[in-house]
Amino acid sequence: MTAVSTMMRAALSLNHFLDRAGRYHADVEIVSRMPDKSLHRHTFRDFHRRALALAEVLVAAGVQPGDRVATLSWNHYAHLECYFGIPAAGAVMHNLNLRLFPHDLAFIVNHAKDHILIVDDVLLPLLAQFSKDVKFERIIVVPLTGKPVPAGYDDYEELLRKASGRFEPVAVDEHAPCGMCYTSGTTGHPKGVVYSHRSTVLHTLVAALPGALGVSDTDTVLPVVPMFHANAWGLPYLAVFVGARLVMPGPHLDAESLLDLFQRERVTITGGVPTIWLSILQALRSAPSRWDLVPGMRMLVGGSAAPESLFRGFDEFGLEVGTAWGMTETSPLGTVSALTAAMRALPEDQQYALRVKQGRAAPLVEIRLIGEQGEVAWDGQSAGEIQVRGPWITGSYHEMPVRESSFTADGWLRTGDVGCIDEHGFLRLTDRTKDLIKSGGEWISSVDLENAIMGHPAVLEAAVIAVPHPRWAERPLAVIVLRPGMSATAEEIQQYGSRTFAKWQVPDAYEFVAEIPRTSTGKFLKTKLRDMYKDWAWQGA
Amino acid sequence: MTAVSTMMRAALSLNHFLDRAGRYHADVEIVSRMPDKSLHRHTFRDFHRRALALAEVLVAAGVQPGDRVATLSWNHYAHLECYFGIPAAGAVMHNLNLRLFPHDLAFIVNHAKDHILIVDDVLLPLLAQFSKDVKFERIIVVPLTGKPVPAGYDDYEELLRKASGRFEPVAVDEHAPCGMCYTSGTTGHPKGVVYSHRSTVLHTLVAALPGALGVSDTDTVLPVVPMFHANAWGLPYLAVFVGARLVMPGPHLDAESLLDLFQRERVTITGGVPTIWLSILQALRSAPSRWDLVPGMRMLVGGSAAPESLFRGFDEFGLEVGTAWGMTETSPLGTVSALTAAMRALPEDQQYALRVKQGRAAPLVEIRLIGEQGEVAWDGQSAGEIQVRGPWITGSYHEMPVRESSFTADGWLRTGDVGCIDEHGFLRLTDRTKDLIKSGGEWISSVDLENAIMGHPAVLEAAVIAVPHPRWAERPLAVIVLRPGMSATAEEIQQYGSRTFAKWQVPDAYEFVAEIPRTSTGKFLKTKLRDMYKDWAWQGA
Repeated sequence: MTAVSTMMRAALSLNHFLDRAGRYHADVEIVSRMPDKSLHRHTFRDFHRRALALAEVLVAAGVQPGDRVATLSWNHYAHLECYFGIPAAGAVMHNLNLRLFPHDLAFIVNHAKDHILIVDDVLLPLLAQFSKDVKFERIIVVPLTGKPVPAGYDDYEELLRKASGRFEPVAVDEHAPCGMCYTSGTTGHPKGVVYSHRSTVLHTLVAALPGALGVSDTDTVLPVVPMFHANAWGLPYLAVFVGARLVMPGPHLDAESLLDLFQRERVTITGGVPTIWLSILQALRSAPSRWDLVPGMRMLVGGSAAPESLFRGFDEFGLEVGTAWGMTETSPLGTVSALTAAMRALPEDQQYALRVKQGRAAPLVEIRLIGEQGEVAWDGQSAGEIQVRGPWITGSYHEMPVRESSFTADGWLRTGDVGCIDEHGFLRLTDRTKDLIKSGGEWISSVDLENAIMGHPAVLEAAVIAVPHPRWAERPLAVIVLRPGMSATAEEIQQYGSRTFAKWQVPDAYEFVAEIPRTSTGKFLKTKLRDMYKDWAWQGA
Repeated sequence: MTAVSTMMRAALSLNHFLDRAGRYHADVEIVSRMPDKSLHRHTFRDFHRRALALAEVLVAAGVQPGDRVATLSWNHYAHLECYFGIPAAGAVMHNLNLRLFPHDLAFIVNHAKDHILIVDDVLLPLLAQFSKDVKFERIIVVPLTGKPVPAGYDDYEELLRKASGRFEPVAVDEHAPCGMCYTSGTTGHPKGVVYSHRSTVLHTLVAALPGALGVSDTDTVLPVVPMFHANAWGLPYLAVFVGARLVMPGPHLDAESLLDLFQRERVTITGGVPTIWLSILQALRSAPSRWDLVPGMRMLVGGSAAPESLFRGFDEFGLEVGTAWGMTETSPLGTVSALTAAMRALPEDQQYALRVKQGRAAPLVEIRLIGEQGEVAWDGQSAGEIQVRGPWITGSYHEMPVRESSFTADGWLRTGDVGCIDEHGFLRLTDRTKDLIKSGGEWISSVDLENAIMGHPAVLEAAVIAVPHPRWAERPLAVIVLRPGMSATAEEIQQYGSRTFAKWQVPDAYEFVAEIPRTSTGKFLKTKLRDMYKDWAWQGA
């Protein structure tokens, strides 16, 4: 006779994390930079009370389990309350990306059928740009500036004061939705990903592990990555779960403001896209003795592959860059680069070669590479599309049919990213499928070229794209921003690139510009670049 | 309309951990002390291959999902292969406690309906003591001594060599059973607890967190606690999951052998019951310069509350004692004592006061204290029965009706342990409900008295029990083992106890003995002590 497990069927729930924060981490501080640059301070005790108060007033306002409550907010204490208070009401926190075009925001709000909006007062002008195209039952304004909330809106603080303080979170099944993000795809309409209590709890447990992000109650965490972008990589959930001190930058994301917060609040771990760190590194270099940061502060880089020069550059300042890979569809932790004890004993250059990679599949996530002939070997050379599977990977998109272009027949997510995996299991991201360059029948990785060119001392940023070529079908073109006050010719850069790449791989076309167009999340907007240079006149072709 | 999570429904499974061990931790070493004291060494690559081979031969032998495969083994590489190979066959690993009486083992095997037994060759004499009362379909012998396996048994190594090496683990639902342990209760029949893939995976993820056991791939783990006792506190699962180096002591659990392994194999974390650590501390003290252990080696203590003198004693040697609380029914992690950053800044005495406690509920576990008037305050003083709830807490016993004495109507496990919880949420274990002493209508904690008396320099061990008293109903009696070569009178110890306890709480009866009887898991056998001294002649009563 088959044995049956005697274990309790206890549901995984964000409400458990909220309860622990109030019970065990009550004295831990949450610091938020306000629009006027002043610092707002309160504790997890306040957070716990206020998140439950928010849940109570939402339920009182008629919010039903599974209803969507949208946020349009920077990173700060009130947004954190929404992260937990909305799920405690049984509802779904849908964070809106305030960097999208207003017409995209309207599409997303309508597609998600958001009932209620919670919005920063400083973002009301953005709301005004699409409010005629959407219909919320109720709009709650967070008065960050302290100014009176305009007529017709609810005041977040006033609502919270109405709560009785006696509210039990709404119990839900662990598969019930707790959050929602739309992808910021550069082609087609944005697509909605709906996270569950289960997926978020599991993602948080794994992210906290020493071999993953490794955050504990001795840390002070500053998420530069916005809370409206892939859940700020789960850092808000993580900090609340482990009781780490939280520092929120609000709307001030320039290098100077961030360095000031790092120094003032003794930040030990932070995360953001490479462009943020490039600007921070430049600021540190321009005034090396000005900043006194916590030695060994960890800086997580994600969103796209970062050049080795970034790792080496920060090492000079005693700051440690770490990398990971993921996307909105993967909650977002797909892989994480954490060197093992054995790897940390390798020569420095070999360590760098591993550190710049995106690392191993996070625990509970499975990864594979699929090439034109099926599954590709883990030999560090063979490239294929990255496919993943696991409990926090999306298996569909909100209210959309499951398409072959996004999911395989055997249930894996097709990420659209291309990479190699080495014998250690370390993934190296080489490209988006659509960003590969096919020259004379051979593939060239735009990301590898960009990282090589960015190693040139005069180059601040480089984007490499495919442009049509009469003879080779496509050839790479490099769009380059030089460092202020420095110069380099196309020939010099081409020669520099030839040190690490075969001649046919190195771009023979260069364009020097003041700025590279970017997506709302700071990535190079390659669709725009390809469009700008599609009629490139090849000499002698 | 209610939103639905788009997350994949991926099952939590031990097979995922096994796969990661082969994929990512292949070069990590597993060292096992053999019966002849030689060291057997292989790697997670071997472990991965052999565990799958075991699964393959079990399936070939007709093992069906949910079938029980028992083990009767010390801690070593082959037992670890059973931990993962039996579940990979879809079956349930049932580890038998080799310290139980043969008639209890026969009861357990028959109650669990074990189909197959995997047994160390050195334990065949134990098997012979109950083999006539049980019936296995097949007995597989692990030839640890290298001697030929007796006729009538299968040879574990020979079976493994028959495997094709092409076997995919049997896919099971996450609630499917993977393991089984019987409680070693001192009263009544043993009761079976059946763990699931889900409960074991979640327990392992949480145990690995820095705020819990905090084990990572930089660690070398030596489980002194037997793999047949509460899953060796989950340490085998944990080491395989994070890729920590494993050192297995085999049958050699004396202080000298353990110290030799700690030193030789550079162990960084180990775990066992207090009596083990008392003997180790004594050995260190008797030859302080003899051993060269890894500085800061962590020693987890569980099973019962440990005296402060143990913490202070090891601190003198630069070794760190940590404590936790749990039982077979809780997988076993119920609470864990990990000081927060703020607590580590407290004065030393206050840190000790916290370190000796059993700590906070592990993440995902809920805890409460129930006294005679319902739930008891977290004030550090009020005591109540410890009740817990969570995804790795048992909600019933294998093939037994759910009784009120074990589970509450609202679904919590009644642990039978008594404790207080302070304002930090730290549990302090004060007693088993049945070990409390009720003197003149007031409760006295036997554990508190024991720990106080063990602080006396001449006392090696002390057990305090209730004995009937004509006037006070019950009074405490202390059974004492003195340190070799030292002496103390009852009056001296009574006076010593009066420093920290009220006069009426301190025992006025003392018995000096050479040894205190223990349970199979090393705890004081208080039922026996109570029986021995039930007719104590009170002077002047």
